Amino acid sequence: MDTTIVIGYIAGCLTTLSFIPQVIRSWRLRETRDLSFLMLLLFAVGVCLWAVYGIWIGSLPIIAANLITFVLILFLVWMKFRFK
Amino acid sequence: MDTTIVIGYIAGCLTTLSFIPQVIRSWRLRETRDLSFLMLLLFAVGVCLWAVYGIWIGSLPIIAANLITFVLILFLVWMKFRFK
Repeated sequence: MDTTIVIGYIAGCLTTLSFIPQVIRSWRLRETRDLSFLMLLLFAVGVCLWAVYGIWIGSLPIIAANLITFVLILFLVWMKFRFK
Repeated sequence: MDTTIVIGYIAGCLTTLSFIPQVIRSWRLRETRDLSFLMLLLFAVGVCLWAVYGIWIGSLPIIAANLITFVLILFLVWMKFRFK
């Protein structure tokens, strides 16, 4: 596997996994006031389209990374409504 | 331009531009307590690597989208320290 692909995979892991500490923080604080709902909405639609793009070009890493991110964002949206 | 590429561009625009409402919200509220610093850090490193990946595969949209996101994230990091 060449370096370019490895860099791509690391980048994908980081931007996907970055939402985990946000989910943990929101859950612990029981506060999401400072999070922008519009940000979450645009990001959710964006990662869905990335997943569609991944399906069309047949790229499993793109599909997987974006579906994981989508689930994490959904959880943040739920907390945004739950913890006003 | 075929539909797949268009979907990819729309997805890229959405996930990039989604940080703008977050920057606006943080600026207006003068509050960033609910934002996870680790999320911002991982995302910043992630988009930098995406930009490197973009340079290596010669993809201007990947470079541009990720550099814009990087600047927006830097601004959020600055506010995270500024507005404790």
